[in-house]
Amino acid sequence: MRVSITSGRAEGPSKLNTFDNALLNAGIGDVNLIKVSSILPKDADIVPISTFTPGDMINCVLAYKFSDVEGDVISAAVAVAVADEFGCVVENTGINRDLDDIKSEAEDMVRYMMDVRGMKINEIIIEGKSHIVKKQGAVVAAVVYMN
Amino acid sequence: MRVSITSGRAEGPSKLNTFDNALLNAGIGDVNLIKVSSILPKDADIVPISTFTPGDMINCVLAYKFSDVEGDVISAAVAVAVADEFGCVVENTGINRDLDDIKSEAEDMVRYMMDVRGMKINEIIIEGKSHIVKKQGAVVAAVVYMN
Amino acid sequence: MRVSITSGRAEGPSKLNTFDNALLNAGIGDVNLIKVSSILPKDADIVPISTFTPGDMINCVLAYKFSDVEGDVISAAVAVAVADEFGCVVENTGINRDLDDIKSEAEDMVRYMMDVRGMKINEIIIEGKSHIVKKQGAVVAAVVYMN
Repeated sequence: MRVSITSGRAEGPSKLNTFDNALLNAGIGDVNLIKVSSILPKDADIVPISTFTPGDMINCVLAYKFSDVEGDVISAAVAVAVADEFGCVVENTGINRDLDDIKSEAEDMVRYMMDVRGMKINEIIIEGKSHIVKKQGAVVAAVVYMN
Repeated sequence: MRVSITSGRAEGPSKLNTFDNALLNAGIGDVNLIKVSSILPKDADIVPISTFTPGDMINCVLAYKFSDVEGDVISAAVAVAVADEFGCVVENTGINRDLDDIKSEAEDMVRYMMDVRGMKINEIIIEGKSHIVKKQGAVVAAVVYMN
Repeated sequence: MRVSITSGRAEGPSKLNTFDNALLNAGIGDVNLIKVSSILPKDADIVPISTFTPGDMINCVLAYKFSDVEGDVISAAVAVAVADEFGCVVENTGINRDLDDIKSEAEDMVRYMMDVRGMKINEIIIEGKSHIVKKQGAVVAAVVYMN
């Protein structure tokens, strides 16, 4: 299975459209996202996000935060840890906290998941974005199962 | 892909059963609904809702509102916009607002989605229902991906 | 289709990890869960939970409760009712209520679902767990569609 890791942020005229704009910014706006929990199959290939056929049904782990308070700093991150056996994924979000904190919290949680399963981590990938809200803003971070 | 647009409303003896009754009223009570986000594949055929094999796994965009306050007017609507390339779907709900408002808000949002993607709308379909709560009421509106 | 019914409980160092630990305790921690609504196909076989290929995409009905208040009693239950035609599933959760109450409420709701559909119940299965929170606790109960 190929897996992509991406993030995006946007403003928009309504909560729904702001979310949609953030998905477009992340390169995953033209598909139907199906939210799943957080295990990466063995030998998953992590690849750049590519173009989809519009309307494809795409499984993903999604971190998403919205705010309509001007000046709010909103952040979303995902962390992926990979071992020989398989991998784990976590999502994390926050308001008015440093993006580095949100990312490092995500890293702690995914390390713990690997620990609990007795797996030795080969690689950790963390991806996230922050956004300072003007009127209505959204951030997303996602691990997308490509096929 | 064939797509159906439907809505329903009901009272019931518990929140879960009220939701289930509203799904039955909409003709989608005997399947397993999987919620997806909001893109219609190219050349989707919009067809009347038909009978399903009970227990089928069915992807759908779902608008859902519940209230247990007597006299509340609850509304749910979906709006579908179709272009040559593909289509977009939004869901919208409200309490104690006119159904026409909920529908026109849904229309605005889906028009904006199409605009952002630079697509020329060929057709817009809007479907929704209101319900005046007696004891516990629910309304649903859904775009159902039939296969 | 084979279907398994399971439940689990755990403590953990974060909300996400507590949930993950409860899924592991229930035997469904190493898969990607996709939440679905609540119909059991005709002739579903109810079998013990077995091992999965890590990362499998697994449809399930999931009851889940989390608390970080020391001493809270959290409960999650699922109820499955089976008829000749097909079956129905409900999930239920509660805080500081007797597990028997949560289970019997689940049973009432699933009986009502079968009633509304005019189906004669052949068998009812109820599964659930309680947990007394130390620092952060979670309980889950699930009906898992195995294939």
